Amino acid sequence: MVIDCHGHYTTAPKQLQSFRDEQIAALKDPKAAAPKTLASITDDQLRDSVQPQLQFQNDRGTDVTIFSPRASAMAHHIGDATTSLDWTRHCNDLIQRVCALFPENFVGVCQLPQTPGAPLAHCVEELERCVNELGFIGCNLNPDPSGGHWTAPPLTDRFWYPFYEKMVELDVPAMVHVSASCNPNFHATGAHYLNADTTAFMQFLSADLFKDFPALRFIIPHGGGAVPYHWGRYRGLAQDMKRPPLGDLIRHNIFFDTCVYHIAGIELLLKIVPIDNILFGSEMVGAVRGIDPETGHYFDDTKRYVDQISWLSDGDRRKLYEDNARRVYPRMNARLKPRAPAEAVSEKSARL
Amino acid sequence: MVIDCHGHYTTAPKQLQSFRDEQIAALKDPKAAAPKTLASITDDQLRDSVQPQLQFQNDRGTDVTIFSPRASAMAHHIGDATTSLDWTRHCNDLIQRVCALFPENFVGVCQLPQTPGAPLAHCVEELERCVNELGFIGCNLNPDPSGGHWTAPPLTDRFWYPFYEKMVELDVPAMVHVSASCNPNFHATGAHYLNADTTAFMQFLSADLFKDFPALRFIIPHGGGAVPYHWGRYRGLAQDMKRPPLGDLIRHNIFFDTCVYHIAGIELLLKIVPIDNILFGSEMVGAVRGIDPETGHYFDDTKRYVDQISWLSDGDRRKLYEDNARRVYPRMNARLKPRAPAEAVSEKSARL
Repeated sequence: MVIDCHGHYTTAPKQLQSFRDEQIAALKDPKAAAPKTLASITDDQLRDSVQPQLQFQNDRGTDVTIFSPRASAMAHHIGDATTSLDWTRHCNDLIQRVCALFPENFVGVCQLPQTPGAPLAHCVEELERCVNELGFIGCNLNPDPSGGHWTAPPLTDRFWYPFYEKMVELDVPAMVHVSASCNPNFHATGAHYLNADTTAFMQFLSADLFKDFPALRFIIPHGGGAVPYHWGRYRGLAQDMKRPPLGDLIRHNIFFDTCVYHIAGIELLLKIVPIDNILFGSEMVGAVRGIDPETGHYFDDTKRYVDQISWLSDGDRRKLYEDNARRVYPRMNARLKPRAPAEAVSEKSARL
Repeated sequence: MVIDCHGHYTTAPKQLQSFRDEQIAALKDPKAAAPKTLASITDDQLRDSVQPQLQFQNDRGTDVTIFSPRASAMAHHIGDATTSLDWTRHCNDLIQRVCALFPENFVGVCQLPQTPGAPLAHCVEELERCVNELGFIGCNLNPDPSGGHWTAPPLTDRFWYPFYEKMVELDVPAMVHVSASCNPNFHATGAHYLNADTTAFMQFLSADLFKDFPALRFIIPHGGGAVPYHWGRYRGLAQDMKRPPLGDLIRHNIFFDTCVYHIAGIELLLKIVPIDNILFGSEMVGAVRGIDPETGHYFDDTKRYVDQISWLSDGDRRKLYEDNARRVYPRMNARLKPRAPAEAVSEKSARL
């Protein structure tokens, strides 16, 4: 089985964006009332909307996508806590409906109703609702709800602890994922996303968060930002700062996905980062939509790159494609078919 | 000849820091007058202070370092335009004295008196002074003088054009280099530096700056931040955005250094980025000071990594170590011995 840990619902029916447009318009015009409800979306419209994802799964040979709302549209910096909560609940509800329509193809991960400067009570409630009522298995946590002004405390600050307590209680991980940037310095997918990944890793390296929360798990997407390429710098910084070796630091708590869109980058990632800390992901349908003229294949068909890494053992490949995701997102096991016993046996022997 | 394009004066005599400490103390206490002069520093004190750099040059087999003030100490966010100008001139003057004492080992690059929100007139004047009077060959330009709040316009904005006009007139490049971060989200050397590199590259990719300034040249340090590792993402984004192919985009204008502290990262850089766009650099004595227990050598001894890349041709190695730096920093040629004719001939045949 191949689990893609990083897919966004970038192809939602237009009613969702219309709701958002009205919501934003209402913020600018105090006389206009915010739209209370999302216009009706039929199951057929939802089915149609995810045909691109289903087609890519089929064409590329992946089985199930850990599916969350469009990341760049979370835009937590827009409006206030009520704006964010309304928008977030609609986005998450649609994810739940898609997962119910295609239970073998999608498993849900939620957006959170974050707002700059606001406490995390709404996020705790929404996480609980999504996990306990909608069957979600994780969340996307935005380290910069201001959208490029970086006004929130670092992820290791006690500000975040109430949310982490709920994550641990529910046994769900968070992907660290920023949204759109309203700072003209930062292009979203070309700078802000990768910067946030790099920033979060260095925050985790610098503090003792995982002593306080040994069971807390984060996925740092986009191949870990700049981190694997600069692994020597981070090993050196950790040593200079008298921090644990990186392997120990990340072991049970920090994971990278494989959203790196060329084979040389994927090869570096797989060579440098312990295989137990890498989850297969593609970010489809997402940041880069085109076909690479050098290969004739989609840039974001990351499975092709992984499949070309000839030195990867079958056991490691299985970890990357399936076992690590089941371990990091344990609630997935209740949603998916269990591993076939034959596979489990061969995995066991591969470990010996 | 091996030219290290990225060295900072991190070992300056303590009088320099004392001046800075007094300057900052005066900002906090309006009754205290800012120190007008730097306490006397003798030539012998300067000679002593760069013994670590000279020793590393000798041990590692590099010849000359393009030398600039300590980057993290520029701290353009502290005080006002006068604070920044006073501090900058002292820092640059010391670089000039070191270069005069060791003309075969150091060539100067200046810090700029940037200040958040201030126009660039002081920077234009200081660049002119440093190049025309002190013999400097380039500058370090901070894309975020606010120190992690990112309040300046992108580097492609017309705000920067008066400074670029002076750079082109003087035929000097700029290394894009941020300073300390006063935003608790960003560790300086572990996040802010790499984020700035990534951010600047994406700004350059998104706009037509080099149509307006075909002769403008930037070095993006720290191996280009996240860029080479995500080269596929950037190729795909450029294609989606109908921008030129990356090779065309960077050819005459954007260069990366080799400040990547492990061999897998260096190998990716040299494999992916056109060799004409890479300059050898080490960032010594700098971000990471320790010895890698896996190799028994300094993390920042980047020449060791480059020397281990067996598939690099002699011609390419010569470009990386010397020719590219002479081309990007042409004023260096007046400061250094010309290339030996024999070398020039062999280089020519390597090109054929």
